[in-house]
Amino acid sequence: MTRVVLAYSGNVDTASGIKWLKDARGAEVVAVTLDLGQGGDLEAVRDRALGLGAARAHVLDLRDEFARGYVLPALRADALYEDRYPLEAALAWPLIARKLVDIATIEQATSVAHGGATADPSPLHTTIRAVGPGLDVITVPHGESTPALAVSSNLWGRSVDCSRIHDPWGEPPEHLYTLTKTGAECPNEPAYVELTFERGTPVAINGVAMPLVDLIISLRTIAGAHGVGRLDLVESGSGGRCRKVYEAPAAVVLHTAHKELTKLAVSRDLERFARQVRVHYADLICHGLWFTPFREALDAFVDKVQERVTGEVRLKLFKGACRTAGRKPAAARPVPAENRLLAVD
Amino acid sequence: MTRVVLAYSGNVDTASGIKWLKDARGAEVVAVTLDLGQGGDLEAVRDRALGLGAARAHVLDLRDEFARGYVLPALRADALYEDRYPLEAALAWPLIARKLVDIATIEQATSVAHGGATADPSPLHTTIRAVGPGLDVITVPHGESTPALAVSSNLWGRSVDCSRIHDPWGEPPEHLYTLTKTGAECPNEPAYVELTFERGTPVAINGVAMPLVDLIISLRTIAGAHGVGRLDLVESGSGGRCRKVYEAPAAVVLHTAHKELTKLAVSRDLERFARQVRVHYADLICHGLWFTPFREALDAFVDKVQERVTGEVRLKLFKGACRTAGRKPAAARPVPAENRLLAVD
Amino acid sequence: MTRVVLAYSGNVDTASGIKWLKDARGAEVVAVTLDLGQGGDLEAVRDRALGLGAARAHVLDLRDEFARGYVLPALRADALYEDRYPLEAALAWPLIARKLVDIATIEQATSVAHGGATADPSPLHTTIRAVGPGLDVITVPHGESTPALAVSSNLWGRSVDCSRIHDPWGEPPEHLYTLTKTGAECPNEPAYVELTFERGTPVAINGVAMPLVDLIISLRTIAGAHGVGRLDLVESGSGGRCRKVYEAPAAVVLHTAHKELTKLAVSRDLERFARQVRVHYADLICHGLWFTPFREALDAFVDKVQERVTGEVRLKLFKGACRTAGRKPAAARPVPAENRLLAVD
Amino acid sequence: MTRVVLAYSGNVDTASGIKWLKDARGAEVVAVTLDLGQGGDLEAVRDRALGLGAARAHVLDLRDEFARGYVLPALRADALYEDRYPLEAALAWPLIARKLVDIATIEQATSVAHGGATADPSPLHTTIRAVGPGLDVITVPHGESTPALAVSSNLWGRSVDCSRIHDPWGEPPEHLYTLTKTGAECPNEPAYVELTFERGTPVAINGVAMPLVDLIISLRTIAGAHGVGRLDLVESGSGGRCRKVYEAPAAVVLHTAHKELTKLAVSRDLERFARQVRVHYADLICHGLWFTPFREALDAFVDKVQERVTGEVRLKLFKGACRTAGRKPAAARPVPAENRLLAVD
Repeated sequence: MTRVVLAYSGNVDTASGIKWLKDARGAEVVAVTLDLGQGGDLEAVRDRALGLGAARAHVLDLRDEFARGYVLPALRADALYEDRYPLEAALAWPLIARKLVDIATIEQATSVAHGGATADPSPLHTTIRAVGPGLDVITVPHGESTPALAVSSNLWGRSVDCSRIHDPWGEPPEHLYTLTKTGAECPNEPAYVELTFERGTPVAINGVAMPLVDLIISLRTIAGAHGVGRLDLVESGSGGRCRKVYEAPAAVVLHTAHKELTKLAVSRDLERFARQVRVHYADLICHGLWFTPFREALDAFVDKVQERVTGEVRLKLFKGACRTAGRKPAAARPVPAENRLLAVD
Repeated sequence: MTRVVLAYSGNVDTASGIKWLKDARGAEVVAVTLDLGQGGDLEAVRDRALGLGAARAHVLDLRDEFARGYVLPALRADALYEDRYPLEAALAWPLIARKLVDIATIEQATSVAHGGATADPSPLHTTIRAVGPGLDVITVPHGESTPALAVSSNLWGRSVDCSRIHDPWGEPPEHLYTLTKTGAECPNEPAYVELTFERGTPVAINGVAMPLVDLIISLRTIAGAHGVGRLDLVESGSGGRCRKVYEAPAAVVLHTAHKELTKLAVSRDLERFARQVRVHYADLICHGLWFTPFREALDAFVDKVQERVTGEVRLKLFKGACRTAGRKPAAARPVPAENRLLAVD
Repeated sequence: MTRVVLAYSGNVDTASGIKWLKDARGAEVVAVTLDLGQGGDLEAVRDRALGLGAARAHVLDLRDEFARGYVLPALRADALYEDRYPLEAALAWPLIARKLVDIATIEQATSVAHGGATADPSPLHTTIRAVGPGLDVITVPHGESTPALAVSSNLWGRSVDCSRIHDPWGEPPEHLYTLTKTGAECPNEPAYVELTFERGTPVAINGVAMPLVDLIISLRTIAGAHGVGRLDLVESGSGGRCRKVYEAPAAVVLHTAHKELTKLAVSRDLERFARQVRVHYADLICHGLWFTPFREALDAFVDKVQERVTGEVRLKLFKGACRTAGRKPAAARPVPAENRLLAVD
Repeated sequence: MTRVVLAYSGNVDTASGIKWLKDARGAEVVAVTLDLGQGGDLEAVRDRALGLGAARAHVLDLRDEFARGYVLPALRADALYEDRYPLEAALAWPLIARKLVDIATIEQATSVAHGGATADPSPLHTTIRAVGPGLDVITVPHGESTPALAVSSNLWGRSVDCSRIHDPWGEPPEHLYTLTKTGAECPNEPAYVELTFERGTPVAINGVAMPLVDLIISLRTIAGAHGVGRLDLVESGSGGRCRKVYEAPAAVVLHTAHKELTKLAVSRDLERFARQVRVHYADLICHGLWFTPFREALDAFVDKVQERVTGEVRLKLFKGACRTAGRKPAAARPVPAENRLLAVD
């Protein structure tokens, strides 16, 4: 009997995936639920997997590994799609791939499976193949009642693919947003936030040191309350128009501050070249090419540059806008262990 | 007796320049005041030039030529410094150079002179030399009471170089801004503006066609009232840190809309290459290299791409932020003559 | 009964294609043989098509259209793969696509077909779809006795894909080369060739004006006799290693001269940017994206730059090497009609 | 009395420089002659310095430091000007700067001086200032009888600036070449050379391991005998046309092999990005910006990529041409200490 490790988020597709893997493929299913900071009761998600017929079900808390091993390198590289959009979902693929493959090894499974909720699952495929070349990769088919909106969420942000309901002439409906307030509801006084970076890594808010996961969660709360972090993407592609709504309060605040500090820390020529590096870094994330020599080489470049990026940035959050209000470059100090870059390969 | 054509803005430097050219250089001075939309009573400026000893004084209304011959190509190319800052002062150099040289020819002058109010006058020098290779170019020395703030202003925006008083940790004082309201003073309701583009050129606001100069002035008023257009630049350079405050309400609104529409009109590969073109186009403007084969070749590229950029963009202006709220690409229609690109070479 | 227009080169694949289209697809076949300068008796090729069962068979002399409409733009852009390899086969795709679609319209055919001799036929597919979006495109399957070497040949050069027999440690066998002499057989005295360019277009050899097709053929003979034009490409790709041997005597001579003259005609900054344009232009050719707004925009750039590229270049051909021995930039003169760029879209 | 450390090559300019520093500047002169592999009797050069009035004169053998600390990083990055020209003279600037500053510290000198033989001395100035910011830098004026040809020579190659006598239409006179044979004098049989690279570093010729300096000298001899390594540069610049003749047999052979092996070792996307890195690396060398965070960051990138570049390349040298005849990628092995990259900062 085939044993399959399924990435089980608890959504409709992965839930029906348990049944499909058992019935149509005759497989024994090991459900794995990864805590990447998406919220919700993941113990209940696990119990439901067992109720649906999974042989075993695991929940793994990966928030720290996600933050320090994947989010942090992308932040240090300022890898944003089109120089604006945080790649919160794509950044999770390499970690998901690695954990699926690790558990498949432990469980002696020959296949791993994932739900195909996103439009094009191939980058996750690509990533899984790079990590576990010997495994069979299965895409679980969509359930019957696929929702019009595909929501993705984790520690680093939230995105809603509303390509199916999109009218590019209209604004996205307010109910799509859950992390950020609309301008009218925001306080009438701006908030000021001071962020401290050590060698390119954020280590403190308003002078209070905290681990990276806590720092991201704190910023999400503060920035979200001031409406910061909404982004709206419409683009033409081979498969028609794509429309996505993003909420990434912490990402917007941290990238704004980090780019500003980097600009002050390096020469204009280096900063300009670093912009090219950003574009390629973001491409690699998008295309499921995290585990490649190319990304490793770009990381070596970024790490060298970031040795110089130490100091404080003061940000003003007001009615949806995040602006730099002050910069104070400083000499490098040690980075606390719990904020430090996690080597993942 | 030498005859010198002086670019006379009426500020302290150029005013003392008339005296200096007469006394120290023994020259006959022809003062030229160029109306680029900076505002103020330019007839009074002219009269004052005569009062200071200029042999002749001219005022030229160049607003339409500036808008269609220099601002428009830069807008169509989305040539922004660091992908953010409109180059309002640098865009005027080629037009200033051309007019000084034209008038020098008419007046049979052998030299042209300009005030050295900005930190580094060389790009304007470079431009004048490219247009009038046979002329002597004189930089008028700074007056005794050089102000701490160097203000530049025209139709396309306003910038204040506050490098001398800058503290990069603090926000710029509110009194530096004259075109844009602060967030607290802005209306509590957002404004929506619909912009129509024909082949890359803006032709109407909210469906009302208007010449380019009027369109820019209208947007400046609307956007400024909602606090849109403030930008704050701090950068490290060879001559220490530079700090500039920009107000460019019309530029921010137009570039936001134009970039969004261009993105929908072309393939992703072309859009990405166009980003490289933007960077080089902005560099050429910054370095006084407008009158070069390089810029002409980039313009040929941009013109071809912009043939496809037709449609409407809806923008939401609120408390300092300008966001795209809607896009409606359309088929190309003719561009009215009074908005049309003006060939300047 | 379906009518299919088949690109019929006369090779094994396209020959068996006639039979396959008739028998397996029940189609009426119109064979089209395009004279792109590949040599051979094309009338005999046509007769054989009829003998194999084609309903009609046409031979079209496209040498001038190929040279001026496709080879010349690529030469003016210096679009070389990896800055070295002429894209002789890929440059023919847009012309082949256009002619197949034109003839399909005339013949009221609903499909066009081509042999799949090259490893990956998709760029030709892409091109046909761009030109004739309403047509069905059929790839004729390989014949039973596919040769180990896939040879491609036209006016602009010849390439042999020897991936199947390749040993990257060894030199390609001498018999693969038919246009160029090996070093030992070349004359012991160098030949000098003077090429005249008008606005980026080659118009004369050693002062003798001649149409573009004749100029290419003459250079092929002279340069081939001195062993010039051999290139050997080994690269890693997703489908294993690729090895190709090229013979492109005229292309090597013309690009060498053209690049040298361009470098003298433009500023260093423009020349550097033009190098980026080359890379993208070559990519577009490789990927079957000739008929795109991106290529048109690059052409607009190139055309503007090439207005300045006039003069003579003297080349030394010796034992396989082609080196610049002299350069003489000049003022622009008119380009003869028979050398002129042919607008194809 | 001021003490000055003078970079003393023994040429006319630096010789008259000793006298000038003593007489016109009243300085005590410490002459330093650096052995970078340029050849000649450097002990005699030192004695002559003392004879001309130097207080002290030193000769330093820097060949290994030059090869492993400067030439090797540039080779691994494939940093060639215009993707063709080795930067043999510019690569020596950072080492010259560092040694002058080191000796100035030891000698308690307050100034360093160098001859201004090359057209524009500023990159060397820039480099000295970066290494020894507290020192005064003096450019020794040209002697009265400046030669028409400015020759630069070291381990990595030789260049002759013949801008003064250049006729871009003619070939450089044969007597300018001293390291390479002309085609007619070369053997009628090709030579084959096999080069072994470990992690991007050349370690053996034809299977015989040797230190980097010896490897470069051996290749210079072999390749020079077959006429390989001649390059001829004509370019337009702000100061009129520049013409240089290069002889760099070892550089041409090593870069040819290294580029070929790198191409096989990495993905096409990474290879393409690495081409951008090359361009910027070469620019930094040219502009005297070796000791910058930018170069360090590029080196970090290159080092990561080069971990994968191991194997053998077989080259065919014949009548001036150097072509790849075979490639054999391999798994990485340790690099011998005497070939290893030397960290210089």
